[in-house]
Amino acid sequence: MTPAAETVPRLRSWWGWGYQDAQPDDAECLALGALLPGTLARPLPVPRVADLAVGRPAVTPPPSLAHLVGADPGDRAAHAMGKAYRDVARALRGRPGRIPDLVARPTGDRAVADLLDWAGSHGVAVVPFGGGSSVVGGVEYRGDAHRAVLSLDLTSMDRVLEVDPTGRSARIQAGALGPVLEDQLRPHGLTLRHFPQSFEFSTLGGWLATRAGGHYATGHTRIDDFTQALRVVTPAGTSSSWRLPSSGAGPSPDRLFLGSEGTLGVITEAWMRVQERPRHKASAALEFTDFQRALDAVRAVAQTDLAPANCRLLDPGEALFSGASKDGSSVLVLGFESATGPVDDRLAAAVDLARDHGGRVAADTAGGGAVGAWRSAFLRMPYLRDGLARMGAVVETFETAATWDRIPALIEAVRAEVGAAAHAATGQPATVNCRLTHVYPDGAAPYFTVAVAGRPGEEVAVWDEIKAAATDVLHRHRATVTHHHAVGRDHRPGYDRQRPEPFALALRAAKGALDPHGILNPGVLLD
Amino acid sequence: MTPAAETVPRLRSWWGWGYQDAQPDDAECLALGALLPGTLARPLPVPRVADLAVGRPAVTPPPSLAHLVGADPGDRAAHAMGKAYRDVARALRGRPGRIPDLVARPTGDRAVADLLDWAGSHGVAVVPFGGGSSVVGGVEYRGDAHRAVLSLDLTSMDRVLEVDPTGRSARIQAGALGPVLEDQLRPHGLTLRHFPQSFEFSTLGGWLATRAGGHYATGHTRIDDFTQALRVVTPAGTSSSWRLPSSGAGPSPDRLFLGSEGTLGVITEAWMRVQERPRHKASAALEFTDFQRALDAVRAVAQTDLAPANCRLLDPGEALFSGASKDGSSVLVLGFESATGPVDDRLAAAVDLARDHGGRVAADTAGGGAVGAWRSAFLRMPYLRDGLARMGAVVETFETAATWDRIPALIEAVRAEVGAAAHAATGQPATVNCRLTHVYPDGAAPYFTVAVAGRPGEEVAVWDEIKAAATDVLHRHRATVTHHHAVGRDHRPGYDRQRPEPFALALRAAKGALDPHGILNPGVLLD
Repeated sequence: MTPAAETVPRLRSWWGWGYQDAQPDDAECLALGALLPGTLARPLPVPRVADLAVGRPAVTPPPSLAHLVGADPGDRAAHAMGKAYRDVARALRGRPGRIPDLVARPTGDRAVADLLDWAGSHGVAVVPFGGGSSVVGGVEYRGDAHRAVLSLDLTSMDRVLEVDPTGRSARIQAGALGPVLEDQLRPHGLTLRHFPQSFEFSTLGGWLATRAGGHYATGHTRIDDFTQALRVVTPAGTSSSWRLPSSGAGPSPDRLFLGSEGTLGVITEAWMRVQERPRHKASAALEFTDFQRALDAVRAVAQTDLAPANCRLLDPGEALFSGASKDGSSVLVLGFESATGPVDDRLAAAVDLARDHGGRVAADTAGGGAVGAWRSAFLRMPYLRDGLARMGAVVETFETAATWDRIPALIEAVRAEVGAAAHAATGQPATVNCRLTHVYPDGAAPYFTVAVAGRPGEEVAVWDEIKAAATDVLHRHRATVTHHHAVGRDHRPGYDRQRPEPFALALRAAKGALDPHGILNPGVLLD
Repeated sequence: MTPAAETVPRLRSWWGWGYQDAQPDDAECLALGALLPGTLARPLPVPRVADLAVGRPAVTPPPSLAHLVGADPGDRAAHAMGKAYRDVARALRGRPGRIPDLVARPTGDRAVADLLDWAGSHGVAVVPFGGGSSVVGGVEYRGDAHRAVLSLDLTSMDRVLEVDPTGRSARIQAGALGPVLEDQLRPHGLTLRHFPQSFEFSTLGGWLATRAGGHYATGHTRIDDFTQALRVVTPAGTSSSWRLPSSGAGPSPDRLFLGSEGTLGVITEAWMRVQERPRHKASAALEFTDFQRALDAVRAVAQTDLAPANCRLLDPGEALFSGASKDGSSVLVLGFESATGPVDDRLAAAVDLARDHGGRVAADTAGGGAVGAWRSAFLRMPYLRDGLARMGAVVETFETAATWDRIPALIEAVRAEVGAAAHAATGQPATVNCRLTHVYPDGAAPYFTVAVAGRPGEEVAVWDEIKAAATDVLHRHRATVTHHHAVGRDHRPGYDRQRPEPFALALRAAKGALDPHGILNPGVLLD
């Protein structure tokens, strides 16, 4: 490693996904654009902060908090939105979301509480901000009901504070990005093994606040299941639950804050269940000519106790785009891992089941092959989306979950109806791909990618039309508005229709009790 | 089967556990009493309803609801309390809890809603009642803040309404007792496999409302994890969540009602995740001379991915009492089951691990042996407790959970301090036994049984002293006030100290929104 690599941090993009140096260059943008008929002749320029109208902050923090708060225009711009396509498109067209007046970086619970106190007494909205990777409008401010907006960036609180090797648990500050917390667990031989697609650019607190779905395709996968205790600073006081492996004492306090998306309080730390690093791994890819039979194969595997860590089904378009298959097959990627013992028998049993449903083991399974191709493409996808956005394409990714009886018709309806909506909005042919990211004995979580050349300058309007169609299809098929991307502001229409009304009453009352001034992430989950 | 067996239902005890014909007779009571120094010379008589002062109901239901409501004294007496030792002792001494004015048996959601409407507008407290097996004072009324008390017995709503074989799910009415719902699932080749000790005498709704712990000693075991969707009738409307295998849309609506113990609404039905009946089983028992090493063995097994269905550790007293061992050993009962494939390898790996920590495979493991002895004793225990109660003994069972680092000191402290409290309260030697009922990678759930001869006529006071000592020890060791028995009224002191205050604010607000007249199970969870 050169000294330069040690000392120069990689720069994050203020408007797009990830690192600046990993973003597609103009040539790659053009190559991506060539995949989609009707895109622009040349990429839109990378937007610059200097071109934004970043006004003066409407409020000034008190001297006691001044050291935690900044108003640098670039920093404020980088905290104006998350990283949904809609956010990228707005930035590319020079119309980003409302830029926060201030960015605060608290260093501890006391600072968070003090900032909330000040904000509450001054009508300042507070938007908790972790890695800023929200793809649902979860970290911006919309409207004008507040005097000012403070983005509360938690990433200065990024330490693993304590490790309990006996109970395999770790107390971790909420602002730790995925790699930051894994780096601190590694010397203990431990890992959280929560690897969402956003892993590099999202924080523990963000995962907890949005009930993120992780690495495991089956069994315990949602961050909820790895949560032993939470510490949450609310305007009404700090909630600290006990470290417990399990408890039956009333409704779970943690489960109210998990998924609260910054509306009830600010999660500042958590005791998380960690585990030994796996020592045994085995994987295989299977090709299917018939997608319906592939679905049956996945369901058969999900209803055993084999518990694959990976069990991703890619439809033909998804397999083609990621390089996992070139012949129009659907591809099932199976992976097993264990710190206990060999997993070859479990893999063999799952492969047998898949074969019973028409699967053929892909030739080059052992090495990189389909498995490796998929993994590389997986991490690169958000960057490619931004490349497509620069070519004027509209790209929407949305995910859901439904019981198995509804899955085939749901996927068919999304392909047909959302594809038709994208075409109607643009006059261009649209691509709709699907993969299953997580599977359960009782259902599955399909993830859809829609791409179409936009109407130049009206990409956000096109996206809104596609999103409305998607929300409508999901609702008619009783498929959840989100499996793991969260609700944010973009999913409110679907969420409001899906949520049982008495639960809405209860949640609103809880919000009133914990956030009496209504300053926490206004517009998310509740009005 | 004789015609008589088909047509004569077994009679439930109004004051003690289970069926009248399974209760210990006087001879068995005397034999039980002989195990504990200082018990009575002859058993207390079985209490009779005719000896109770059952007053006239303070309210009359409107004609439209009259067909759902009864005021039979025996029925009302049987709905006055649950089946805690404290309840049995009060009945034996002729001082049962407040007898409800009325018992209602609704047949559907509409009837439940109508009863809640009427109760709300007439100041009538409503105590939801399933199998009545609460051991924490969860199904009685204390105080006098309401004009009358209605026990809402759900057991007329006991049907499996729908089965989805594709997604292995079933829609089940909340009033179905364990055997009743399993009988209806069996023809489909399916099972819920939720077998708490109270299985025969508790309902699905009760399990859901109290977040019951079930059959499985590891992995998914709590009823929460088997819940796909809930239907809850609240005074503010009916909450019906979607059938979803998983969802990340805000805080889970179901998780607010799970564990709400009848304070937020009445759970009337649920879509539950069911499964194929296991085809492969294997079990073994291991003896340990050193309890601490046995704990290490259990932890080692719990931290693998072997996932035993049974992994119960009995301390020497518990092993002796149940007949699982006669030589003062601790006994670990291991069981594996699967509908997928043979489990012998998993059992062998777990046994190897246990051997590494000093376990010896018990000689007669294969047949009945220690495993069979334990299972028989397990189901018989609550009956034996009532036999001991008739001999004037005080028996308290309480359970908890804590992280592994706290488990050894916690168990030691309970033995010493609760044993000392029982002795101090009675002057008699006390027995304190312990078993682990559920184990997790990060901790375990110890279950304690305390038995001591009481002060004649003051058994409830003795129990209160023992309970206070137990609650205090658990709190000082940061062990939950309950792992799966729920909070009810008996655990309020410990619960109130354990629950984070901001969560209490939120829960109180939610209760105010859903139950504005404060009629639902007053005194449970909240005042």
